[in-house]
Amino acid sequence: MSNFPELKNDLFLKALRGEQVTRPPVWMMRQAGRYLPEYRELQAKYSFFERCETPELATEITIQPIDRLGVDAAILFSDILVMAQALDFHVTIEKGEGPIIHNPIQTEADAFKVSKPDVADRLNYVMQAVTMIRTELNGRVPLIGFAGSPWTIFCYLVEGHGSKDFAKAKAFCFSYPKAAAHVLSVIADATADYLNAQIIAGAQAVQVFDSWGGLLSPNDFSVLSYPYMKQIVDQVKGAPVILFAKGAWYAMEEMATSGASALGLDWCTTPEFARKATHNAITLQGNFDPTHLLKPIPELKLEVHDMIRRFGVQRYIVNLGHGIIPGIPVPHAQAFVEAVKEYSE
Amino acid sequence: MSNFPELKNDLFLKALRGEQVTRPPVWMMRQAGRYLPEYRELQAKYSFFERCETPELATEITIQPIDRLGVDAAILFSDILVMAQALDFHVTIEKGEGPIIHNPIQTEADAFKVSKPDVADRLNYVMQAVTMIRTELNGRVPLIGFAGSPWTIFCYLVEGHGSKDFAKAKAFCFSYPKAAAHVLSVIADATADYLNAQIIAGAQAVQVFDSWGGLLSPNDFSVLSYPYMKQIVDQVKGAPVILFAKGAWYAMEEMATSGASALGLDWCTTPEFARKATHNAITLQGNFDPTHLLKPIPELKLEVHDMIRRFGVQRYIVNLGHGIIPGIPVPHAQAFVEAVKEYSE
Repeated sequence: MSNFPELKNDLFLKALRGEQVTRPPVWMMRQAGRYLPEYRELQAKYSFFERCETPELATEITIQPIDRLGVDAAILFSDILVMAQALDFHVTIEKGEGPIIHNPIQTEADAFKVSKPDVADRLNYVMQAVTMIRTELNGRVPLIGFAGSPWTIFCYLVEGHGSKDFAKAKAFCFSYPKAAAHVLSVIADATADYLNAQIIAGAQAVQVFDSWGGLLSPNDFSVLSYPYMKQIVDQVKGAPVILFAKGAWYAMEEMATSGASALGLDWCTTPEFARKATHNAITLQGNFDPTHLLKPIPELKLEVHDMIRRFGVQRYIVNLGHGIIPGIPVPHAQAFVEAVKEYSE
Repeated sequence: MSNFPELKNDLFLKALRGEQVTRPPVWMMRQAGRYLPEYRELQAKYSFFERCETPELATEITIQPIDRLGVDAAILFSDILVMAQALDFHVTIEKGEGPIIHNPIQTEADAFKVSKPDVADRLNYVMQAVTMIRTELNGRVPLIGFAGSPWTIFCYLVEGHGSKDFAKAKAFCFSYPKAAAHVLSVIADATADYLNAQIIAGAQAVQVFDSWGGLLSPNDFSVLSYPYMKQIVDQVKGAPVILFAKGAWYAMEEMATSGASALGLDWCTTPEFARKATHNAITLQGNFDPTHLLKPIPELKLEVHDMIRRFGVQRYIVNLGHGIIPGIPVPHAQAFVEAVKEYSE
């Protein structure tokens, strides 16, 4: 896949490589989402997985926020649970409810039955979308691919649905540690394949979302989540990897040594803590509280400036600390991006 | 209320006062709860609020785990949302669902209408239960009273129900900061009255549960949660106060200076981090991951010993990092307590 149009805005990739930039790049987690009226139009017409599985729709949705907001990166529209589908789990997402896995892992035997599929084949529609988006972007900004972390996917496979504490998934690990390790390791292998296939298809960076890592104690995180993310970092070739483990503040120092190019941060940490914990040695991405986007625009912009001042312009990617929420007015999302471009030291 | 029976086991109060102990005291959050078959019998017969509002039932439930587990403290059976009821909110808790507030705060005007009730009168049934429990305990162990933190109560009053992120409650604060401050301050005043009334009725220590403090950024926590907990600590007289702010790891250092006698910790922090952040200057309580109670008993006991070794025997109260979960077998809960009693340096 060599003849994609030339990249015009490489701010994001420069920040990931730790190269000097004149201002930090900015994008927003879930920037292709429900706060955009043009997204809601497609949401009304197509089911969630229709939107994921139809390359033309995934492309349209991925690109919707790019010019509208003026962000410095695009992120593939998809869902972390397509991996569960590739692993032969039957997943549905009903509007207004969370995801349901209809054949969750209930026994040790169920767990040992999980085996690595040919992901690039099973999720071929994602790779098609990636190539189509990359072409359609026409070099405006780089394209980020993504996947869920093995621990986070495991949580859904065992719990069977979303949860506040994923107590069932955690309990499974303490009752059947070997069976849990088997599943986690299969997911890690499959995820590395998946991200490599996205990169071959055109993704210029990839992010691993560990949405539920922060439910683990520091010791459990270092057994159940981190090693599998590290394995992915080791196996992914050809593009920088960003690790985002929501809530796992205690693991920042360890994650900074993973070989990843950047760490995503949630809003519950200060820039000072994060820079210190990571010994100022890795690019950091984050961490504006998404609900602060509801503040009056002048106040919001001042907060963005303060955040940049505290993280520093270099080795920093401006983002939210979690996905943008549906109720954010578009002008407030635009103001977030504008504030970054208006920043001066 | 001076002629209660003499206290035979003062390990818990000694640890709160920072006095030397031969072993750390132990109790478990939600120790009076669904994992106990005798609790489930009463749950089948009476609604949640019947159990809270009938002093005889609250007494029976509070005392159920005491001899069964051999814990060093009893905690009042009640719910943090009785405060919402005292403030004229209509709260129901349906089995299997979370709480619903039927008349949530939706506008600035709604917020300014919230005013402090005569809590000791409105929640008189709680004070009756406290006195009855204290009498019934007959000096076996001290009795802990409790309340929700102002921020946590506020979350429910505005959101109207449980939530993963309480985005609506947070958004309200950023749209109407003065109205939010009014409500938080009324709740803080009412909560201090409430805890003082519990102490007069017989509670020998009180704990403030900030279940949702950890959803706030460090800066928001120091504006929306901490000052109101500090106000409660300042206003509560006659018994030690324990502050438990789940997820607010970044605020440990500040909370240690609040004047509280102890800080409760969730399982997502190491003993070493917590001791360092609090400058070894305050009693700490916690922080066993409740799902670890499902581990085989010998392993569970070793983990408890390791936790005690790392926190140290002095200025330490053994507890879980959150409430015990319904699926825990009673022998595992008993083993947790036994492990503490078997600990030797």
